[in-house]
Amino acid sequence: MDITLADIAPLSLGAAILGTGGGGDPYIGHLALRHLIEQTAPPTVIDVDSLADDAFVITVGMTGSPSVMLEKLVDRSFADAAVRRFERLVGRRADAVLPVEIGGVNSLVPLMTSCVTGLPVLDADGMGRAFPTLDRTSFGIAGVSPFPVVTINERHDTVIVEATSHERGERISRGALVPMGASGSCALYPMTGREAKETTVRGTMSLALALGRAVEAARAAKADPFEAILATVASAKPKIFGRVLFEGKITDITRETIGGYNIGTGILSSGGEDDATFGFQNELLYLKQGSELLAIVPDLICFLDSETAQPAMCETLRYGQRITAMGFAATSHFRTAAGLAATGPASFGLRESYVEIERLGRQTPAAATASAR
Amino acid sequence: MDITLADIAPLSLGAAILGTGGGGDPYIGHLALRHLIEQTAPPTVIDVDSLADDAFVITVGMTGSPSVMLEKLVDRSFADAAVRRFERLVGRRADAVLPVEIGGVNSLVPLMTSCVTGLPVLDADGMGRAFPTLDRTSFGIAGVSPFPVVTINERHDTVIVEATSHERGERISRGALVPMGASGSCALYPMTGREAKETTVRGTMSLALALGRAVEAARAAKADPFEAILATVASAKPKIFGRVLFEGKITDITRETIGGYNIGTGILSSGGEDDATFGFQNELLYLKQGSELLAIVPDLICFLDSETAQPAMCETLRYGQRITAMGFAATSHFRTAAGLAATGPASFGLRESYVEIERLGRQTPAAATASAR
Repeated sequence: MDITLADIAPLSLGAAILGTGGGGDPYIGHLALRHLIEQTAPPTVIDVDSLADDAFVITVGMTGSPSVMLEKLVDRSFADAAVRRFERLVGRRADAVLPVEIGGVNSLVPLMTSCVTGLPVLDADGMGRAFPTLDRTSFGIAGVSPFPVVTINERHDTVIVEATSHERGERISRGALVPMGASGSCALYPMTGREAKETTVRGTMSLALALGRAVEAARAAKADPFEAILATVASAKPKIFGRVLFEGKITDITRETIGGYNIGTGILSSGGEDDATFGFQNELLYLKQGSELLAIVPDLICFLDSETAQPAMCETLRYGQRITAMGFAATSHFRTAAGLAATGPASFGLRESYVEIERLGRQTPAAATASAR
Repeated sequence: MDITLADIAPLSLGAAILGTGGGGDPYIGHLALRHLIEQTAPPTVIDVDSLADDAFVITVGMTGSPSVMLEKLVDRSFADAAVRRFERLVGRRADAVLPVEIGGVNSLVPLMTSCVTGLPVLDADGMGRAFPTLDRTSFGIAGVSPFPVVTINERHDTVIVEATSHERGERISRGALVPMGASGSCALYPMTGREAKETTVRGTMSLALALGRAVEAARAAKADPFEAILATVASAKPKIFGRVLFEGKITDITRETIGGYNIGTGILSSGGEDDATFGFQNELLYLKQGSELLAIVPDLICFLDSETAQPAMCETLRYGQRITAMGFAATSHFRTAAGLAATGPASFGLRESYVEIERLGRQTPAAATASAR
């Protein structure tokens, strides 16, 4: 399918929901993508199954401060720079690109690359959400190497990293990124068509678009956008479990920047019942009500404005903001032992054990209504 | 010429003299090179003029904490890793290697590469001394690009930097280097045979060896090693101006580590006359007596033990140490306007103007004797 101008707003909205509070606000990339489409051609999204097994696929994304960098992608000579350098490095042309994560601005990056190069974008990603580091991917967990990682800034300064572990590669790339201006466009995780079929989280570009369209339609019809979201994930293939976890106002929020990450905790108060507490590292990591866990990584926790269902970003959460917290089951790639080792609570230094969202949780009256549909 | 086991000690000694107080103590690399020669073949050093104009030459060196890394070069799979990765990157085999700087441990790195690969080492380098950053080279000043810069650590984590300015490239490489373990083996400044002929500082490997042999011979004969050094540079082709600048004891030394550099100042006192003051950033930058300049970068200032002529390192200068300070004229590559912009006092944040060492200086009685020869 082609992504038209009319698709950009709902796609950005859906990607912001799946961003679980981080991943950068894709609304900022909205205008950049619109501008590129107007100047070039609409990006094409294809099903992973349409790839040949020996096709060559490159994952693309932004690293560092994506909001800053995304605006640079309007420059046609930059939107394809990382992929083109990658191709020259390995001596092979790409057959398709895909996003490293569907949550946040990184969902838009391959579309911009597609506008300029004509390469199709896979309807898939490596997370089905956003995570603070690029090593937490379904491909990486399945054994696909992220290396070489090509990072390029808007001056076309380029760094190529080939490390001997994911974690060291991430630290080396971050070390190089600061003097590059703290943000860059990346090409990484090269894979074959067969590997893409076996290791990606499928259908997530379509899912983001469907989520955004459902919320827009509900707003236009003055219907309940949260019900629309739950109906959308329930009809996804495969079906995704979702639930409203809590509704309340932010009564407490603390935030620090540590090692380039936005780290903090906060409280949601609903008045009657026990308060809910949450923690985040760029993205929301857990939500508890009293001592009871409501959801925890890798399952998705999404804070949406209680009136409009507009996604709230952890960077800008503020006292008094009225939040409806929704939760969704993580991709099955993250629920294996290896997947949980890479993306579960312990990987973020949390003491809680992982429990699937399906097996958790008090429900608020709203949630009970919504999930009874 | 082949570099034999007997050459290693004098070559290391001469390279330490030309290290102007920095560049890492080549004595540490001594055993590593000996070990490699015993296991493989002696390295070969060739004159730059024996290269074909279209030959392909790669510059090699260590970055970060060279003393640590040099010991890793004993590993045969590591001594050629940076050059081999560079060759694969650009799709061309090297015909020769050369040191980025002759001062300090970097003079030994291409010899180690030669042992393992059989590639000849050029009798030339990019500085005729040592400098704290790899962008201050005769090649760079002449317009040869340092990029791509390939850096590899002993785990074989690899970073390739292609920046759009020397200075940004240096900062990006340093940013990546910290998580790599703060030291690495580099291949950079690829050039043709013709560029090597036009832009390198010639004959410096031979010069280091001759300096070391002269000091060893003087010690054995109980002759004056400082006179032996002056005689050696006077008979170099082209002749290098040299002089004893000052003799005294260190009565004051302050040192800080700033941005990975060893930065400081100190005082040499001779008793009778005015004290001399000096400053360094890894290498010695200037030497003044009272308000009078004795020598300043890019000219070489070398602190040698007054008894043995053993080179003193800025990292380990200590109160009471008896120093004979010698000075030598910089290569003519550094005395042009472009050369001084890259390597002169202002490039190190010093306020003094550059004056050639030949036009400077009170002489101590010892210096007067030596230069009267």
